Amino acid sequence: MTFLDLVRRRHSVRAYRPDPVPDELLATVLEAGRLAPTAGNRQPFRILVVHTAGREAELRRIYDRDWFVQAPLILCVCAVRAEAWRRTMYDGRSHADVDAAIVMDHLILAAADLGLGTCWIAAFDPAAARDVLGIPADAEPMLFTPLGYPAAGTTPSPRHAERRPLEDLVRRERW
Amino acid sequence: MTFLDLVRRRHSVRAYRPDPVPDELLATVLEAGRLAPTAGNRQPFRILVVHTAGREAELRRIYDRDWFVQAPLILCVCAVRAEAWRRTMYDGRSHADVDAAIVMDHLILAAADLGLGTCWIAAFDPAAARDVLGIPADAEPMLFTPLGYPAAGTTPSPRHAERRPLEDLVRRERW
Repeated sequence: MTFLDLVRRRHSVRAYRPDPVPDELLATVLEAGRLAPTAGNRQPFRILVVHTAGREAELRRIYDRDWFVQAPLILCVCAVRAEAWRRTMYDGRSHADVDAAIVMDHLILAAADLGLGTCWIAAFDPAAARDVLGIPADAEPMLFTPLGYPAAGTTPSPRHAERRPLEDLVRRERW
Repeated sequence: MTFLDLVRRRHSVRAYRPDPVPDELLATVLEAGRLAPTAGNRQPFRILVVHTAGREAELRRIYDRDWFVQAPLILCVCAVRAEAWRRTMYDGRSHADVDAAIVMDHLILAAADLGLGTCWIAAFDPAAARDVLGIPADAEPMLFTPLGYPAAGTTPSPRHAERRPLEDLVRRERW
């Protein structure tokens, strides 16, 4: 599969089978996250792996959707700000958010490559996430996804791959 | 090639051949960026495609390295804050940075899949980037990469794929 085919194959899955994710597949997904490039190779992130079984009610405090806790696993990428590279020579900008996003992108694409479903979630309750998952003050829960096999018959939403034309998104030589 | 193999193959390329990037390969790279998922499908980004030939001196004001302008092309992903999804129901957090990072991750992985070299660059001068590329105040240059064929004999740096062990980066069930 080409990378472009993989990008086209990935979509937001909002219905899951309860079947467990085999350990070797989870290991592959996590390895793709571990190898994600980060600014200055600082690796300022943590990946939380959470089994949903028996924790559905508390996990729904984080993001209240049936399908969020329907998958056997939830992954959360947290940024660790104190570990992140900063652009100190200019404006001091932190790269923590970018690095966390790259990690989640790798997890999600690795899962799609293995036939597993995921869904980028940013609209979660950050305070509930800290509370339920014990995330300390110096870290920030950045992104969540369920991880599991898509339920039979799930198809991409009608808005999937509905994108602006390239001419709107690309500028040539100068803005 | 599996996605994990692609992740292992990608590395920071810091020496390029001057040969042009064929139009169809550039189109594939840009399509992978265009299809990147963004929060709420807002697509709050622009990709600048810049030819380096004849502009080496001004482009080096952005990032002063020989290899930055050695590649025939430079790509820059800009965030457009006013277009970005915000977590208004909780803390108002903007997703602009995350979205821009996903786009650049797609561009870079698509390039690696095609045998093209790239290098994540965050340590550029943001004021110079605005000036040289005419980036308006409501957009932010987030990330750069050269894009071109790696020079013969280039190998990953010794620090490539030097990562913490999984146990340091992964937490199980709770932080």
